[in-house]
Amino acid sequence: MTTTQGRAATGLSSAAHADLVALLGAAAVLDEDASGREYGDPFTFAGWHSRRISATVLPETVADVQGILRLAGRHGFPLWVVSQGRNNAYGGSAPRLPGSVLVSLRRMNRVLEVDEEHAVARVEPGVRFFDLYEHLRAGGHRLWSSAPDLGWGSVVGNALEHGVGYTVHGDHAARLCGLEVVLPDGEVVRTGMGAMEGNRAWNLHPRGFGPTFDGLFGQSNLGIVTKAGVWMMPEPEHYFSGSIRVPRREDLPALVDAVRPLLLSGVMQNPPAIGHPAFIAGLVPGAPSRSEVHSGPGPIPETAVEALAGRLDLGRWTMRFALYGTEPIVAARLAAVRAAVAVIDGARVDGTSFAGHEVHDLARDQNAQVQAGIPSLDLMKALDWYSGPGGGHLDFSVVTPLRGNDITRLHDLLDGLMAGTGLDFDCAMILGRRYAINVMQLYFHPEDEATVSRVWELYPRLVRAAAAEGFALYRAHLDFMDVGAEQFDAHDHAQLRFNERLKDALDPAGVLAPGKQGVWPAAHRAG
Amino acid sequence: MTTTQGRAATGLSSAAHADLVALLGAAAVLDEDASGREYGDPFTFAGWHSRRISATVLPETVADVQGILRLAGRHGFPLWVVSQGRNNAYGGSAPRLPGSVLVSLRRMNRVLEVDEEHAVARVEPGVRFFDLYEHLRAGGHRLWSSAPDLGWGSVVGNALEHGVGYTVHGDHAARLCGLEVVLPDGEVVRTGMGAMEGNRAWNLHPRGFGPTFDGLFGQSNLGIVTKAGVWMMPEPEHYFSGSIRVPRREDLPALVDAVRPLLLSGVMQNPPAIGHPAFIAGLVPGAPSRSEVHSGPGPIPETAVEALAGRLDLGRWTMRFALYGTEPIVAARLAAVRAAVAVIDGARVDGTSFAGHEVHDLARDQNAQVQAGIPSLDLMKALDWYSGPGGGHLDFSVVTPLRGNDITRLHDLLDGLMAGTGLDFDCAMILGRRYAINVMQLYFHPEDEATVSRVWELYPRLVRAAAAEGFALYRAHLDFMDVGAEQFDAHDHAQLRFNERLKDALDPAGVLAPGKQGVWPAAHRAG
Repeated sequence: MTTTQGRAATGLSSAAHADLVALLGAAAVLDEDASGREYGDPFTFAGWHSRRISATVLPETVADVQGILRLAGRHGFPLWVVSQGRNNAYGGSAPRLPGSVLVSLRRMNRVLEVDEEHAVARVEPGVRFFDLYEHLRAGGHRLWSSAPDLGWGSVVGNALEHGVGYTVHGDHAARLCGLEVVLPDGEVVRTGMGAMEGNRAWNLHPRGFGPTFDGLFGQSNLGIVTKAGVWMMPEPEHYFSGSIRVPRREDLPALVDAVRPLLLSGVMQNPPAIGHPAFIAGLVPGAPSRSEVHSGPGPIPETAVEALAGRLDLGRWTMRFALYGTEPIVAARLAAVRAAVAVIDGARVDGTSFAGHEVHDLARDQNAQVQAGIPSLDLMKALDWYSGPGGGHLDFSVVTPLRGNDITRLHDLLDGLMAGTGLDFDCAMILGRRYAINVMQLYFHPEDEATVSRVWELYPRLVRAAAAEGFALYRAHLDFMDVGAEQFDAHDHAQLRFNERLKDALDPAGVLAPGKQGVWPAAHRAG
Repeated sequence: MTTTQGRAATGLSSAAHADLVALLGAAAVLDEDASGREYGDPFTFAGWHSRRISATVLPETVADVQGILRLAGRHGFPLWVVSQGRNNAYGGSAPRLPGSVLVSLRRMNRVLEVDEEHAVARVEPGVRFFDLYEHLRAGGHRLWSSAPDLGWGSVVGNALEHGVGYTVHGDHAARLCGLEVVLPDGEVVRTGMGAMEGNRAWNLHPRGFGPTFDGLFGQSNLGIVTKAGVWMMPEPEHYFSGSIRVPRREDLPALVDAVRPLLLSGVMQNPPAIGHPAFIAGLVPGAPSRSEVHSGPGPIPETAVEALAGRLDLGRWTMRFALYGTEPIVAARLAAVRAAVAVIDGARVDGTSFAGHEVHDLARDQNAQVQAGIPSLDLMKALDWYSGPGGGHLDFSVVTPLRGNDITRLHDLLDGLMAGTGLDFDCAMILGRRYAINVMQLYFHPEDEATVSRVWELYPRLVRAAAAEGFALYRAHLDFMDVGAEQFDAHDHAQLRFNERLKDALDPAGVLAPGKQGVWPAAHRAG
């Protein structure tokens, strides 16, 4: 039970609490204890209590969201917003500012419309990848909706955080089309064509008349998105879930350079992902455990990585990819893939073919599922492989050009910085058409303070060193949003100042998600 | 020669003029007479002088642009910005506010970089489609850059106005990646990854860290774009420039519905365009003239349209499209196209195949050229067909869902509204993946005041009637920006109010392009 004292200590007054209860009902205003089991950052040292919240509120309607924002402005309490709160490895659902009221959008979980002809859904932010998938299946829709590796997150929230999936709409931010947003003062605005009442193209055409401001609400504290159009792909006639295995560590740049023309020309339509044997081992039944692979101190040595790859019949690098189309189109695409990677000695292309309609029944492995938009939680096993059950990770996720020598430059840099830390080096790469997102996963167990501390000490050094070489974060954990933003230094940090001007104009009270991505309201900024 | 009196009459003081000359040199500050030959709106009644400018300035550097904006703020004179000034049918290079100083970016015309591996160029806004094409050819780059039907416009300016081209990057706004922008107060900001000095992914990754504000600068008066990344496609191994002809007027919805799955699944990667026989006739050597087709009063009757189509061996509707890939991929795509349109009785699929590298030498017709990104001015002939040499047009360009019955609904509506006006009904459609841009071209000769007046009277009625049915403009002529914006009425015109808040925050002096897309600075707004 919440006590007045408890709320006072974290910044929510009794009057504010009473107003929230009057607005939402007592059942939709949780105190910290009730919130804590579901919300927080599971992937940090559990003993660090720096990210406490004062309450969690659970709006159900747009009017609820408007009311919460207006109360925050009136009483001056800060809000932090999560859709499902599964932004794990980047802070989960913990806020930046201790004492914030957490706005969880889990109850706003309706799939409002599915437009089968245009392969679009309109959804609320509490809809999970699982929910949308099941909704499509139950409705008999022959549509595939892109999903990330873990399916429990919010379709909209993930896209707003620039998350990635693995169908043709794997760039999730780019597949949002048409938003409804509640601004910090409680005003509702729709983006694009939806700003015209009754417009038929709201979720179909990515722009309206005049400036396009959809992008303002991603990685942002400028508004709360309450509805979004989400593009999907029609179920293809034919689907090939494939892998390319290359034998040597030094084959990585050649693999990237071989695949780039396939992505640029649209032979491959989805984002392929390149994985490390240790990461993949967690998904292979009967694979040796981390301690069987290497029981000594420090990271897994390269010889053990190679032995593991050999034992599991993996490449030193393994890339998954997918091909979609009619059967002749898929066959022609596959021939182009084989021709492109033939330049790499020992490269192997394998895969499984499906008729599109049979994938739900027949796709068994996670790669075949996720590239067809079938969500799962299988990847949790990879986390446990490194640190045992309940393992956690912090992701250092950096954007490079899609070019072998840029990726090598980054990896060599990180390798050097990590030497002596004892941490395993495991970088997965997700390939866009012109860029790669390099996700270096730093593993630890949340109960192991020493390792967590080492990771937390290392991370900002990685951020600064990567920036000095021309590489930036694409996303960051709460604790490193400021250092991430600071690296954007062109024209004396003009981008941050621009964001601050927008923040001051749209949220003069500074109540919505202060510090999100390094953007602080005026009252919090150094003078 | 400019006189002090002339400047005073249109709002530019002698002091302001002197400061502009001091900043840019006398040769870069043109008076109205010198400007008039190159700048203005060629497609309105020439006797209406409501869009006069006070001067044209020609910056060459980012510092020049900063200086112009600062002088405008200090002296309080309004600016209107054009890249090449070829936004014809939407106002050309005339300003909304009489007496504005026209900023022409024609001298900022450098191709700064071509990244062949990633198929990206970084260009200044004065670079024309012709310039970029020639630069790529001269440099031996095997890259195709999307171009619209007329190649004399600015690559960047066209994209910022949401223009359309016909390669896989035909959605020009979506192919801009990474902007440098001068804000109204003279501050320079880069978007996305470019906001980090030396970042290697500026023009490769479409977002940075935090909110994405690139979209704010399209159809906008919030900044002047001085550099942009422009995505291109690698020269394909094989290229098929095709057409689909359907025989009957009422085949249009079936054609749209047959093609939609091909676009959604990526069988077709570029935006196809559907044309009317009369429009295409202007491009066919030896075709009968408008007066030969119909010499009576009023629009061309349907029987004459059908006769023209028959005589030229066109469909009643003719769709051009392109296929790219390896030879087997193109063959498989073509088989899918043929299968899809086989449902339409009498539909014919034809086309020409090219090896990608030979297209520059062998592509002769405008369709084969423009779908390979080869710019031309051939389409000017279509204008002259209707109204004789020097003919003009006003484009009523509306977004519908990509669905036959929506397009039929719009066309029936417009048909009804145009009955009795005597104007020809000629609607071209450009097909996106989920929407169609319906460009109804209203033809006139700029010396024919009666017809121009009729068109100008009709246009706002079309805007309002279309909006009542759920269809909005994607772009508008200067004279109809306010009525276009007014139709965005959801939440009591929240979108316009949002745009006004941004305008007030970023341009408190209200000097940059007042009224652009209906967004006026505070001083100009009704109380």
